[in-house]
Amino acid sequence: MEKPQPRSFAQALGAFASGADTPRDFLDDCIDEIDEREGDIQAFTALQLDAARAAADASTKRWEEGAPLSAIDGMPIGVKDVIETADMPTQMGSPLFEGWSPGFDSASVHALREAGAIIVGKTVTTEFAATRPGPTRNPYDLTRTPGGSSSGSAAAVGCGMLSGGLGTQVVGSIIRPASYCGVVGFKPSLGGINRGGSHDYMSQSCQGVLAATLEDAWQMAIEIVMRAGGDPGHPGLIGPPVAPDAQKPFALAFLETPGLEVATSSARAALDETLESLRRAGVTIITRRDSKAVAALEDALHETLPLTRQINAWESRWPLNTYVDRDVTKLSKGMVDRLQEAEAMSVEDYRARIVRRDEIRALFAAVSAEAAACITLSAPDVAPVGIESTGNPIFAVQASLLGVPALTLPLATIGGLPLGMQLIGYRNEDAALFSAASFVQGAVGGIAID
Amino acid sequence: MEKPQPRSFAQALGAFASGADTPRDFLDDCIDEIDEREGDIQAFTALQLDAARAAADASTKRWEEGAPLSAIDGMPIGVKDVIETADMPTQMGSPLFEGWSPGFDSASVHALREAGAIIVGKTVTTEFAATRPGPTRNPYDLTRTPGGSSSGSAAAVGCGMLSGGLGTQVVGSIIRPASYCGVVGFKPSLGGINRGGSHDYMSQSCQGVLAATLEDAWQMAIEIVMRAGGDPGHPGLIGPPVAPDAQKPFALAFLETPGLEVATSSARAALDETLESLRRAGVTIITRRDSKAVAALEDALHETLPLTRQINAWESRWPLNTYVDRDVTKLSKGMVDRLQEAEAMSVEDYRARIVRRDEIRALFAAVSAEAAACITLSAPDVAPVGIESTGNPIFAVQASLLGVPALTLPLATIGGLPLGMQLIGYRNEDAALFSAASFVQGAVGGIAID
Repeated sequence: MEKPQPRSFAQALGAFASGADTPRDFLDDCIDEIDEREGDIQAFTALQLDAARAAADASTKRWEEGAPLSAIDGMPIGVKDVIETADMPTQMGSPLFEGWSPGFDSASVHALREAGAIIVGKTVTTEFAATRPGPTRNPYDLTRTPGGSSSGSAAAVGCGMLSGGLGTQVVGSIIRPASYCGVVGFKPSLGGINRGGSHDYMSQSCQGVLAATLEDAWQMAIEIVMRAGGDPGHPGLIGPPVAPDAQKPFALAFLETPGLEVATSSARAALDETLESLRRAGVTIITRRDSKAVAALEDALHETLPLTRQINAWESRWPLNTYVDRDVTKLSKGMVDRLQEAEAMSVEDYRARIVRRDEIRALFAAVSAEAAACITLSAPDVAPVGIESTGNPIFAVQASLLGVPALTLPLATIGGLPLGMQLIGYRNEDAALFSAASFVQGAVGGIAID
Repeated sequence: MEKPQPRSFAQALGAFASGADTPRDFLDDCIDEIDEREGDIQAFTALQLDAARAAADASTKRWEEGAPLSAIDGMPIGVKDVIETADMPTQMGSPLFEGWSPGFDSASVHALREAGAIIVGKTVTTEFAATRPGPTRNPYDLTRTPGGSSSGSAAAVGCGMLSGGLGTQVVGSIIRPASYCGVVGFKPSLGGINRGGSHDYMSQSCQGVLAATLEDAWQMAIEIVMRAGGDPGHPGLIGPPVAPDAQKPFALAFLETPGLEVATSSARAALDETLESLRRAGVTIITRRDSKAVAALEDALHETLPLTRQINAWESRWPLNTYVDRDVTKLSKGMVDRLQEAEAMSVEDYRARIVRRDEIRALFAAVSAEAAACITLSAPDVAPVGIESTGNPIFAVQASLLGVPALTLPLATIGGLPLGMQLIGYRNEDAALFSAASFVQGAVGGIAID
């Protein structure tokens, strides 16, 4: 098997402008990959290839006329199947929604189409973007999980069946699968991308993107936000109309969160090598031993997983109670358990949890005086064997709880399988995070552990 | 025609407990009123009378066994038709959604059913809770509007076809119709009642209640919140499990907002009489002449209507763009115009608006040191003649922009038609607002202007 290869649309823009390449040819390459690999990988719940070809022809014509609608005009994109599309069902990984067609595009999908992007298909999600996995397999090794819950978007972008994918993250659902599938994953600041028309209601949930490169990820996100904004009441992703330039961070905080206790020695070695490369490039790396702010934050972050679980449970009481009313046999045990946890909580319990979350968010904000961003692993290891679990979200969940932007960069491989390094930035300073990430990527290059 | 009479459920609780009355009898009285008046008033888009009777029988049995589920067990309630219900269509006042049945209850409707409340029907809304009116008429005078957008809930509660109604407000959609129909209207603090499953996405929009009395309004709201919370990430309505006791406010700020310029002299006379009664009861009334904070707030509040319109337009870009894609001929001109306004805005324009809104919210919060609440009219006059407009929201929109709780009390009549007095409180201090309102109601009694 050839090594899976993500497909950058941003890098093809020059060729589209010169006529050396066209969006239709670009799409046909994606479709070739789909023809070859989708049978094994099962990244999609629905495909619209004829409509995609027609849209790519229209995009090609616009490029030929020198009038593309945007820098993602013609970009082949997949949509996580909790996000509504007018022309394909939205099934949420649940038999309760089998064949369910809302008939309208989500805010983000509509914005993508306005920008000329090509919606190729719907991608597999775990049940309601939570735990029960779909059938998708990792393009690097079919015996392994692609991660979740944005499983199909990660797998399809990982092997170039798509150039970009929409995902969502409330625990680890973008950062983890992106790490496992060797792509860039971007979870924006809270409310950064409009969730309208997405079945994604929780207060720390975010819509985000998976793509081949930082440039692709930024472009996809900013083109959506210019047309659809962020969540109502939020400023939406703030930054320039093309990806921010690399900028050397004055310091990075290495977060020694609970995940390190379960990280494999190989993953830890890849992280150490990353940090060493950054030090050699002149970046100060601070830890809890250098900074009281980092130490205070890390102590609090031990609460991240239970706090997230309880907040998500209360916030899932509805609609899960309506799903149980409809047909409890179509729900996983995990969803029924979550509802039970919610029903054992009071609104006062919930309030105490979100107050505590705000306190931890303030501890994180205090680190900004000492480090331009934080760095850690994206997952404790490469994708585990088996598709009955989507892996451990222990490294990804911190940024979800904190409501801050996170990026995973495909900087390392272990035995040929990808592992991401994660950078975490400050609320509504997503552009600065991209600048730091771009510098880190240049400084670290690629790390290969046997 | 007999004077319309709202029907308090809270006042019947003692009779339910003693067996002197039953929820089934209470519902039958509502249904008698529906039989008599619905043909003229047209408050409902759907009715479920058989299911309601069965639910009332079950409630009656619980009361007989001394085991009601809550203090609203058996309360007959209507649901504004932008809020989803499992057993009735949700048509949003739009031919685009004719017969549309989502198949699940909203968070609030599910919570009401959990509390034993009886969902009698869906009530008329203007198109997408905005401007184009439905067929509903004012129970006090069939030639007049009931107000909107929560038209059906206000009209049905106003004449006792229901005991309570769910509404929503992003401009003036609860306070205005409640004022016109002689009922208590309560728009909570931002996020006070969970909007899950309601087609009500805007950042200053709120779900709220219309009811016969302050006690009914509080009870309905708090029973929902105990079971469904507020919007995700918000604390939800905070306060005791039964309506807070009356408490004399240390001072009230009389807000001289732009609405006073268009208020009729009769409305102004009713307001003056209200203020005079309060002064006699020993309440200090402050104005811009006594307080720099009030003056600064009032100056800024001149921006309320345009700021609200622009924020709502941007936040309506989606889903309106998808509606236009589907069938533009099924949208009103007002909706198409709103989309055009949105498409002429940039995300930066929107950001500037929400920053300004936050500044005005801070000016309002500063008034809390000088007044326990603010007081003004709920509308410039009684309901206008004609049903082609739902009236002027100029007094109601302030609390929407500010994200703070507002109550309208049916304290005055002009020529026999109701007019509300509005009390506006501070963010998440809804319970204190109820205490002040309860005092005001006692101190003012009823005011009748010829």
